[in-house]
Amino acid sequence: MHPFDSAIHLEPTGPGTFLAHTSPQYANMVGPFGGATCAVMLQAVLQHPDKIGVPVAFTLNFAAPVADGPFTITARAARTNRSTQHWSIEATQDSGVVALATAVFAVRRATWTSTEALAPQGMPGPASLARMSAERRPTWVQRYDMRFMEGAFPHEFDEQAQDHSNSCLWLRDHPPRPLDYPALLALSDSFFPRIFIRRRRYSPIGTVAITTYFHTDEAGLAAQSDHYLMGTARANKFHQGFFDQSGELWSHDGCLLATTHQTVYFKD
Amino acid sequence: MHPFDSAIHLEPTGPGTFLAHTSPQYANMVGPFGGATCAVMLQAVLQHPDKIGVPVAFTLNFAAPVADGPFTITARAARTNRSTQHWSIEATQDSGVVALATAVFAVRRATWTSTEALAPQGMPGPASLARMSAERRPTWVQRYDMRFMEGAFPHEFDEQAQDHSNSCLWLRDHPPRPLDYPALLALSDSFFPRIFIRRRRYSPIGTVAITTYFHTDEAGLAAQSDHYLMGTARANKFHQGFFDQSGELWSHDGCLLATTHQTVYFKD
Repeated sequence: MHPFDSAIHLEPTGPGTFLAHTSPQYANMVGPFGGATCAVMLQAVLQHPDKIGVPVAFTLNFAAPVADGPFTITARAARTNRSTQHWSIEATQDSGVVALATAVFAVRRATWTSTEALAPQGMPGPASLARMSAERRPTWVQRYDMRFMEGAFPHEFDEQAQDHSNSCLWLRDHPPRPLDYPALLALSDSFFPRIFIRRRRYSPIGTVAITTYFHTDEAGLAAQSDHYLMGTARANKFHQGFFDQSGELWSHDGCLLATTHQTVYFKD
Repeated sequence: MHPFDSAIHLEPTGPGTFLAHTSPQYANMVGPFGGATCAVMLQAVLQHPDKIGVPVAFTLNFAAPVADGPFTITARAARTNRSTQHWSIEATQDSGVVALATAVFAVRRATWTSTEALAPQGMPGPASLARMSAERRPTWVQRYDMRFMEGAFPHEFDEQAQDHSNSCLWLRDHPPRPLDYPALLALSDSFFPRIFIRRRRYSPIGTVAITTYFHTDEAGLAAQSDHYLMGTARANKFHQGFFDQSGELWSHDGCLLATTHQTVYFKD
């Protein structure tokens, strides 16, 4: 079994309730990688018998650190319309609510289509870029193969501040795994906190909320399979203890698969 | 009383529950302007006795059309940490849940600050741009003074498709009103659906989810007072019945006050 499938494994325990378990393979500095928490919360909806359609929008608030070990997920269809459905999802541990999420699912149909965001330009092939070393990084970083063209995580915190925090990279699960919605969602939280790229110094940080919009159906995921994706990320504003960053995930052949935004707590 | 204050007026009916009422002054094509719904949901937290700090992130899912008339708002502090607080907020009518929101509040403290997003360049003063006519537009448009430098709502749906959907404008409440968090949040939903700017043809549309990040404290709001703000908005991708758009709200003197993202349903 791929480690990602273990990390998002759910045991149904009642109507809309599931038992989940953090995975040591996706461990972060404290508790699990946020992307794994997002993915398992989405998985609770994907496995819910009342689910219609595919995910269009997903937001998760990291309410408190998730302790290593089991947690309970409750997924509730707050409203089901003809072709859209709104979900409220909560993860709890003994300490109380640790994550609070909402998701919009919809039956997607062919319409006029257009992409205004610009795909990364001039990317050399992934084989010609070195894979980022996961040495001295939290375990979850080993679960991704990241090859940076720009804005890599600094090798050393040398405090050589950059004038922006843009990143552009090839990335995919490691070992490779065919793309699905939980994996795409987890990838959308794999962009390192921009403050590290920008300032190249250590700061205590923590994502407080993430929103990801999906721009693909099952056929689009299948076409991507386990190819590398292109990722880009940038910050908007750092201010009074929080900053926000936005990112995009593009298929290997230039289709925009997801856009993502998050706000992150930081300390000087 | 300013019409916006009427629109966000709440009557407490129990611990964390409030009675709200749609305002004819903020009427949209069907039901109320989404920004007014966001604002009154945020107001429920702002008036909650347990609230700490100021809003940092807010997400609302428009679960179903809000019928003109009363609705009930329930705000629950799902988790309170030392300096952050996570809220779950629901609006219900006889039909069931009509809106589902989450908010992160935090005590904000001075830190290193930097803005990477680029403020609009070369904006002529608001007095030198004409105010957009609200003729043949829903009532809520009259409650804003919008002066477009680029990407105005088309006067006629002439089907002269544009090659992008970017907008850049001055905007503020009409009549002018000192800026506060509910007003800033409502403004973040005032960017017209990008598909109208891009295609200049009519489509049935509806925002399904919006996320706004706040980049200012009370002092920053006070400094803005009732000046015009600068707004920019653009689309990322239109595909299979949904598109996403991102926007920014800047103070009159170039401070980024909020970033906002939404996903919108559309029909060809």
